[in-house]
Amino acid sequence: MSAELICVGTELLLGDILNSNAQYLAQEFAILGIPHYYQSVVGDNIGRVHQVIDQACQRSSILVFTGGLGPTPDDLTTEAIASYFNAPLIEDPDVLQDIKDKFNAMGRVMSPSNCKQALIPQGASVLPNPSGTAPGMIWQPRSNLTILTFPGVPSEMKRMWQETAVTFLKQLGWGQEIIYSRLMKFRGIGESALAEKVGDLLNLSNPTVAPYASLGEVKLRVSAKAPDETAALALIEPIALKIQEIAGLDYFGSDKDTLASVVGQLLREAKQTLSVAESCTGGGLGEMITTISGSSDYFYGGVISYDNRVKVALLDVNQQDLEQFGAVSHTVAQQMALGVKNKLKTDWGISITGIAGPGGGSEEKPVGLVYIGWATPESTTFASEYRLGQNRERETIRYISACLALDGLRRLLIEKLEKNVINSTLLL
Amino acid sequence: MSAELICVGTELLLGDILNSNAQYLAQEFAILGIPHYYQSVVGDNIGRVHQVIDQACQRSSILVFTGGLGPTPDDLTTEAIASYFNAPLIEDPDVLQDIKDKFNAMGRVMSPSNCKQALIPQGASVLPNPSGTAPGMIWQPRSNLTILTFPGVPSEMKRMWQETAVTFLKQLGWGQEIIYSRLMKFRGIGESALAEKVGDLLNLSNPTVAPYASLGEVKLRVSAKAPDETAALALIEPIALKIQEIAGLDYFGSDKDTLASVVGQLLREAKQTLSVAESCTGGGLGEMITTISGSSDYFYGGVISYDNRVKVALLDVNQQDLEQFGAVSHTVAQQMALGVKNKLKTDWGISITGIAGPGGGSEEKPVGLVYIGWATPESTTFASEYRLGQNRERETIRYISACLALDGLRRLLIEKLEKNVINSTLLL
Repeated sequence: MSAELICVGTELLLGDILNSNAQYLAQEFAILGIPHYYQSVVGDNIGRVHQVIDQACQRSSILVFTGGLGPTPDDLTTEAIASYFNAPLIEDPDVLQDIKDKFNAMGRVMSPSNCKQALIPQGASVLPNPSGTAPGMIWQPRSNLTILTFPGVPSEMKRMWQETAVTFLKQLGWGQEIIYSRLMKFRGIGESALAEKVGDLLNLSNPTVAPYASLGEVKLRVSAKAPDETAALALIEPIALKIQEIAGLDYFGSDKDTLASVVGQLLREAKQTLSVAESCTGGGLGEMITTISGSSDYFYGGVISYDNRVKVALLDVNQQDLEQFGAVSHTVAQQMALGVKNKLKTDWGISITGIAGPGGGSEEKPVGLVYIGWATPESTTFASEYRLGQNRERETIRYISACLALDGLRRLLIEKLEKNVINSTLLL
Repeated sequence: MSAELICVGTELLLGDILNSNAQYLAQEFAILGIPHYYQSVVGDNIGRVHQVIDQACQRSSILVFTGGLGPTPDDLTTEAIASYFNAPLIEDPDVLQDIKDKFNAMGRVMSPSNCKQALIPQGASVLPNPSGTAPGMIWQPRSNLTILTFPGVPSEMKRMWQETAVTFLKQLGWGQEIIYSRLMKFRGIGESALAEKVGDLLNLSNPTVAPYASLGEVKLRVSAKAPDETAALALIEPIALKIQEIAGLDYFGSDKDTLASVVGQLLREAKQTLSVAESCTGGGLGEMITTISGSSDYFYGGVISYDNRVKVALLDVNQQDLEQFGAVSHTVAQQMALGVKNKLKTDWGISITGIAGPGGGSEEKPVGLVYIGWATPESTTFASEYRLGQNRERETIRYISACLALDGLRRLLIEKLEKNVINSTLLL
């Protein structure tokens, strides 16, 4: 027993639109605990839709269609399904009236082509569409096979799914068991290294543990199947804790946590404030920190010192050091961090200076070379060198740099909070 | 002869990620004129991948795979393809060396599990991955069937597609008739208003003109079908020009142009420099400007004045005005723009101060209220008020604010360049 998704629409095959419906419905299947092994996309063509149905109904017991329910001739999902199962199409008078009423309410006259949207296969039930003119259907054309159709417009599909389909599927017995997941996030460790560390946990069956890699971040999804959320959490918690112990400081948060939210929380805990000095990121670090609403409690601001003159004038970077070591150097990174901390009177200062490319690199200082500096509440400064790779894109280098800066601060704050050596010079 | 797309990854079936690769590759098939009738998504399971291959190779002559090329045990695309066609997997020493080199360059040690990424089916050619460790392959396991594999990471897949796959497909004879498009971009006009202005041009058949709306930006795609790019351009140019005339200043660029690149170009033309003062955007405007490589020629930097103390200390905002009018006001926006211009000694200064929400709004100053200030080379200052809507998300309000600030500068620069009243105080 599993559900299969069939998205009908030539616009998907032309790449005109992104298939966000597929992601939404996949998540919904997971929540209801319905196994989901296949998705297909097919154009507005009866023969090809038949071919997809032919295979899908051999391997899946619930077929969910999106798209192709509109009034134009190329909308032929209902027709294709009916003809595949040799069922005649019947005009539903209530649906027709509903479509007419909706046109009236908008002050428009229904065009004859809309009549088509009132046709459903004999034996099917209407799945009402409260926000649009295209209703869907729920149909069991033979035993052990249920078909649901939805329009392609995401907002209409989602509302119909939530208001009618979910109830129907629960009546069929689905959703007795849910799949509940926790997404654990890591920095400073690669996907393969983490997988090796976690080892046997990757072979568990309930909860399952699966690794994902995204830009500069590795994730483990811990998913449990259980009658409800509480029971699922009881399965997830001990495994998550074990992983957290194994990963140590490389684990930074779960689910909606971001580096910016975690650092913000730590700064609140420590009652400390932060400012930033940015060269190659051009404001991206400040932007990242201020994605968090309420970040003004601990983030005072910063200086975008893209030009060297700004480094000297606003951050008190030493002109001679700039000339001797260059703007992209340990020394200048440290001076920038201390400069912004002093200028903005915050506990912490972070700085980023590097070569984001694609231009500006040299043999000695290649594209991807980035120095990140930190100034602590005690005005100690230090900087780290990163070589992020000459082949990486400008935006990737900038994004990873901002993440590294925040991740460094996160580790420093945790260390200080654990050692209880927090020394708040500027209480809020 | 047609191409079929097979995306492998349980994360797609769980709805963890959006299948943006499918849209990208669909567009690329269209550009090359390759018919594309089916897409499938299947999980990390050899039996199911075999089943999908089995059907796909009966109806399509090019199978393009994405995903499942990573180092972990659940990455099994290559293995599944090889075993379906009964081909042994061979370790490619060059690929293995390349992976080792990449780990070395990052200062990390290759894990044993990464060796797997150097395995390719006997007879296949490596499709190199310049940005990551997972290479793809190009393989003709039998006549009239070509298989291409790509990693699931979009940036890696796109680069490999453009740098290697396109050339290969053209050698196979594809791309004889191409579909070539120009994406025209507009600001300051809605989708329906632009569609009405453009009128009958929307009914053309070659080139076609189709509207798209995205965040704060409207686009028209002008697409022509022709034997080559030159012929396509000859069809597109006159229509694009007509649209440009109709839209006037609301048209800002095409294709890869962004507000940041267009403003950068105008500043270069005028030989003028820019700095920014940001409150609610927290660095997002500077980040946007510095997405352009070489922006250091005209962008000196800025001040992130998230806290009011920074506005006073670094931007010379008047403390009394701050108290009387509030930080989110015409007056403070103008003082911020002039302050940063003076402090950083640039021709232009732009400022943003607003309430991005979700907290911090009041009846008088609701979420979405944003003031943008501009200081001209003559030190004239002015500010505009925008009400971006209380129901919009924080990130949307911040993004649109940065766009509005740049779009305002764009219009000012064009006006000045046209009137020839450019007065450069700071030649580079």
